[in-house]
Amino acid sequence: MIGDVPNVETGQEYSTRRLAHEAGVHRPLQAGICGTKRTGAESIVVSGGYKDDEDYGDVIVYTGHGGQNGAGNQVSDQSLDDSGNSALVTSYLEGLPVRVLRGYQGDGLFAPAAGYRYDGLYRVTSYGSKLGIDGFLIWQFRLEAYDDTPAPPAAQQPELPTAPNQSKSAAVPGNETPERITSTVQRIVRSSAVKRQVKAWHDNRCQTCDLRIDVPGGSYSEGAHIRALGSPHNGPDTTGNVLCLCPNCHVMLDAGAIIFEDDLTVIRGGQPAGTLRTDPRHTIDLECIRHHRDRWRQ
Amino acid sequence: MIGDVPNVETGQEYSTRRLAHEAGVHRPLQAGICGTKRTGAESIVVSGGYKDDEDYGDVIVYTGHGGQNGAGNQVSDQSLDDSGNSALVTSYLEGLPVRVLRGYQGDGLFAPAAGYRYDGLYRVTSYGSKLGIDGFLIWQFRLEAYDDTPAPPAAQQPELPTAPNQSKSAAVPGNETPERITSTVQRIVRSSAVKRQVKAWHDNRCQTCDLRIDVPGGSYSEGAHIRALGSPHNGPDTTGNVLCLCPNCHVMLDAGAIIFEDDLTVIRGGQPAGTLRTDPRHTIDLECIRHHRDRWRQ
Repeated sequence: MIGDVPNVETGQEYSTRRLAHEAGVHRPLQAGICGTKRTGAESIVVSGGYKDDEDYGDVIVYTGHGGQNGAGNQVSDQSLDDSGNSALVTSYLEGLPVRVLRGYQGDGLFAPAAGYRYDGLYRVTSYGSKLGIDGFLIWQFRLEAYDDTPAPPAAQQPELPTAPNQSKSAAVPGNETPERITSTVQRIVRSSAVKRQVKAWHDNRCQTCDLRIDVPGGSYSEGAHIRALGSPHNGPDTTGNVLCLCPNCHVMLDAGAIIFEDDLTVIRGGQPAGTLRTDPRHTIDLECIRHHRDRWRQ
Repeated sequence: MIGDVPNVETGQEYSTRRLAHEAGVHRPLQAGICGTKRTGAESIVVSGGYKDDEDYGDVIVYTGHGGQNGAGNQVSDQSLDDSGNSALVTSYLEGLPVRVLRGYQGDGLFAPAAGYRYDGLYRVTSYGSKLGIDGFLIWQFRLEAYDDTPAPPAAQQPELPTAPNQSKSAAVPGNETPERITSTVQRIVRSSAVKRQVKAWHDNRCQTCDLRIDVPGGSYSEGAHIRALGSPHNGPDTTGNVLCLCPNCHVMLDAGAIIFEDDLTVIRGGQPAGTLRTDPRHTIDLECIRHHRDRWRQ
């Protein structure tokens, strides 16, 4: 499952991977990434297995899966065809939360002293490839804690001996938590289950302009409410009120630059511009189409 | 200015509009909306001047400006050509915060008992037109408090007398604050000053595909960092590292579906696909172009 596991609090500790597995926090016993391209990544383990990883607490730079020998060295290129890596791409494209489990083998301030600790939900805010320390291609994913994810506890570091004339404040900082790294603003918003259903029916192809945005490792679309949620529009959160659109058509729908006739003709700039593509599994709620049209009657 | 006024806390009260004016919280002495189409709306006053308004505390349905006679009745249609209304459209399209001042004349639980109260920052999450109570076209804007905006204090309501056999819990709720109305997820993210500069230079026209998304009352584009901010990419937040893109090209840039050669040729799906459009005022940082390209070398 994606998201928090019922009855498991952030900060929960497990002495072994098996116990974390049994709790449903991270199901595989070996793999660092749980998930598939189709579902997205459920969870990852941050445990120092990749030397290019970086852990800032609320920001993690996580190296993808693959290409290692038994000694933890990269010996070949990583690929987005790897199921775990493509799962993290889907998490990015769908804006889905990823559970983070930190292990005692991890480097830096935030690894638990022993065993494993569930540190709550993060989201993937960027990714990309580079040549890793060992000279092979690696994929890296930036994960950021959600605003309401508690900060992971930082380990106490032994205080460094200071020379008599050396100002203490100039020494290596002790147990201070690093400041939050400048956050990248996430332009992708989380897809709800209703939106994911509609996007799956249409295979991410825009119902208005027929575009599908293909990117390395996946494709991208947005679920768009026809009749907006909340007052004053009060649209329902149902598949009949959601369209699969490219981001451009989504902006135009929300700001009234496209409206639809009852026969699903698309009206753009006052002129007919094709017909909304439909699918037998996806019944569009005409009442919502009419409400949206009325909202932009000008 | 857009955003919080320095040294003014949310909850600050003013006995008159003039004092709020002098504090810089809401500068006009009469108008309900402060701002222009170019700048966006700085602030609004919620004071019951329009009978179609709705105030749920953290969500406000705010009727635009115009079309009233002196007695507060609509006597003609409102228009997005009105400067205040188009300012709120810009606030929506740019994702800019709007200061909310509530006045004692307002209806409902959240009006202050006397004078005016600054209730912090809200954002415009949707808008549209409809026939108002008086039968003329009005424009309405949904504003939502940011997650970190304190909830406005709700007035005490007199407790309703309950019949002896009537369960108290079935009575009209007393001074309880209404629950948060289902939030619409905002797909538009706030533009920083750097991004707004780049978008202004390019008049919201995509530098990659030349599209400008025109909507009623404005046009829309996104500022996109070429080299991503934060670890591991560590791009600078400068105009040289920002492009003006349509949302579709923004997704493709961030996920590596388009990269650029040093001569600014756009490469899409491995093939040249035009050239990045430039502007004499906008010098693009080639180091960022190269870093982005390296990130998607695969």
